[in-house]
Amino acid sequence: MQAYLDNSATTPCSPAAATLVAKVLTEDFGNPSSMHMKGVEAEKYVKEATSAIAKTLRCQEKELIFTSGGTESNNLAIIGSAMANARSGKHIITTAVEHPSVKNTMLFLQDQGFEISWLSVDQNGEISLEELEQTLRDDTILVSIMMVNNEMGALEPVAEAGRMIHARNPHTIFHVDAIQAYGKFRIVPKNMNIDLLSASGHKIHGPKGVGFLYIKDKTKIRPITFGGGQQKDMRSGTINAPGIAGMGMAAKEIYGNLDETVDRMYELKEYFAEKLSVLEDVTINGKTGRDSAPHIVSVSFPGVRSEVLLHALEEKGIYVSAGSACASNHPATSTTLLAIGLDKQHQESTLRFSFSVHTTQEELDYTVEELASLLPVLRRYRRF
Amino acid sequence: MQAYLDNSATTPCSPAAATLVAKVLTEDFGNPSSMHMKGVEAEKYVKEATSAIAKTLRCQEKELIFTSGGTESNNLAIIGSAMANARSGKHIITTAVEHPSVKNTMLFLQDQGFEISWLSVDQNGEISLEELEQTLRDDTILVSIMMVNNEMGALEPVAEAGRMIHARNPHTIFHVDAIQAYGKFRIVPKNMNIDLLSASGHKIHGPKGVGFLYIKDKTKIRPITFGGGQQKDMRSGTINAPGIAGMGMAAKEIYGNLDETVDRMYELKEYFAEKLSVLEDVTINGKTGRDSAPHIVSVSFPGVRSEVLLHALEEKGIYVSAGSACASNHPATSTTLLAIGLDKQHQESTLRFSFSVHTTQEELDYTVEELASLLPVLRRYRRF
Repeated sequence: MQAYLDNSATTPCSPAAATLVAKVLTEDFGNPSSMHMKGVEAEKYVKEATSAIAKTLRCQEKELIFTSGGTESNNLAIIGSAMANARSGKHIITTAVEHPSVKNTMLFLQDQGFEISWLSVDQNGEISLEELEQTLRDDTILVSIMMVNNEMGALEPVAEAGRMIHARNPHTIFHVDAIQAYGKFRIVPKNMNIDLLSASGHKIHGPKGVGFLYIKDKTKIRPITFGGGQQKDMRSGTINAPGIAGMGMAAKEIYGNLDETVDRMYELKEYFAEKLSVLEDVTINGKTGRDSAPHIVSVSFPGVRSEVLLHALEEKGIYVSAGSACASNHPATSTTLLAIGLDKQHQESTLRFSFSVHTTQEELDYTVEELASLLPVLRRYRRF
Repeated sequence: MQAYLDNSATTPCSPAAATLVAKVLTEDFGNPSSMHMKGVEAEKYVKEATSAIAKTLRCQEKELIFTSGGTESNNLAIIGSAMANARSGKHIITTAVEHPSVKNTMLFLQDQGFEISWLSVDQNGEISLEELEQTLRDDTILVSIMMVNNEMGALEPVAEAGRMIHARNPHTIFHVDAIQAYGKFRIVPKNMNIDLLSASGHKIHGPKGVGFLYIKDKTKIRPITFGGGQQKDMRSGTINAPGIAGMGMAAKEIYGNLDETVDRMYELKEYFAEKLSVLEDVTINGKTGRDSAPHIVSVSFPGVRSEVLLHALEEKGIYVSAGSACASNHPATSTTLLAIGLDKQHQESTLRFSFSVHTTQEELDYTVEELASLLPVLRRYRRF
């Protein structure tokens, strides 16, 4: 038996999306910027994908810019808005639990003279709105808060944060990294006071190498890539029609059946948490109910190094992450687990299990069974 | 009959490359950064592609960084090396005929306080080595020269330029935009004193949304995208294994049979030029022999606006570009045609015909035939 429980690292591309990618690569292969029919044909796929995605966000089509993925979306959102608004202030707020594509981009801006405030989180990985309120200043130009934490599935109060930010100053730009949230939640940026929202194709059974940035109409932002002026000069580079078409198809598929899928995921999460709780000395980090993301479960197995357990599970055909696999494969201390106050022993024994539409109860049963037999053996060789 | 002669805008993806893309999207879909087997499996495709491309350049595998395409490669090369070397000087040299992804990136750097010198070109679109020599200074940190001009196929003397640049100062970084040259020439960066070299997947029958930047070992350059630290921290973002695999396959295919393909393209180019020369009042811009690129022919048809002729040809199933289609679809004055000294009438009546491995003599015969019947009719309605 196999159990792929690393869907927050990446998901298999849906057959319909992959077929569409291949078709636009080989048959309707034109450059959407070309003036002739071959360009127009390719552009149709881009328009269809844009329309499909705009429907999921209830936004205007012109508010969507396609990028090479979540990392580029976050870089464009943060650097692009910081640079465009530097004259209004140099203060930026983010959280202590952001993905490296936000965190390291903030550190880059800090080197460039911006002042970054990092909001702390509680043991569940959630920020405090009071702390946000106290941190907002007259010269705060940008606030960036992830919607779902990639390491433990904490759900941040982005709607409340958005309201607070814009009540204080409607010109402060609110960016939401929704890379782990898009395809799991109905997100309406306009209703949530979100100015910029990042998403990635390959986290929702779409292709790798494509993502989008929602940019609310009239938001002050400048490009970070220079060239032929594609996408209203916001993101130069030949438009990746095959990738965009594939992401549009994946978005349509996932939002076509969202409620049912997500309900099932929450049931699985609860089920998994219950079964895990029977195992000896196992802690689930963060919440497991509707107040968390439906697809991520972070579990500490004190007494076993996470890499050791990861590879032992791998031998049984069970695929999971140690800390965040979105980062490079060099092991590093997890900022999220540190921020929620986990001690070293728990930090170094934490695995992330993440579900997709394909995840079954049988896979979770199998995983818990294997954990039950592996843990006592591995703990005998504990080194810490 | 159809004749797709816009291969410098984009090429159809080869069936083998597209099949591989679909396979890595759906079956071996792991995130190469994941520590388990699914990651390792995906990483294998990346390694194989890297190895295939490294062979074509006779470079080390670690000297290749994958990007989202040619525009990002050029941005990374230019901004990344300028920022990393700003302390050594702020002078940069480029040419007057670069693609917008170089030109506009240079203009961005100019705004950031760098001084840009633009080398002029002769009527064939070629730079002068004497002018380069006179322009090089002690504080020149970067020289960026395209190998093949995208609008007229001029071949720049990059090997001689490289020798001159490094003889003057081995620390001056030499970047070559090889986006129209890779897959048409055997390029060995090490032998040509090239430190950075950009290429794009979809110009060589690979997928869209992927490209590479060759970075010579020990070249001083810093990333322009921040995040999970993938690709030795030079280009963060989930590694686009399907796209990279597809580009590797396309590179293998095209370099497996390069000499024969290119010989045939040169024959076609010469043939096409001869047939065109029989038409009344038609000028070919630049050279048409082995001292030019094998796949690009720029032709002026004074008396007919290029858009009008483009659409008239389109109705006959013939697809070409007006000026450079790599730019956005908003018509703009071509910098290249201006730089070679074409008058307004010739500039505004210029089309680019570009070949691929699939181009046949029959397509060119058909194109010339249609031109022969269209031109007299369209010229009757000339407006300028």
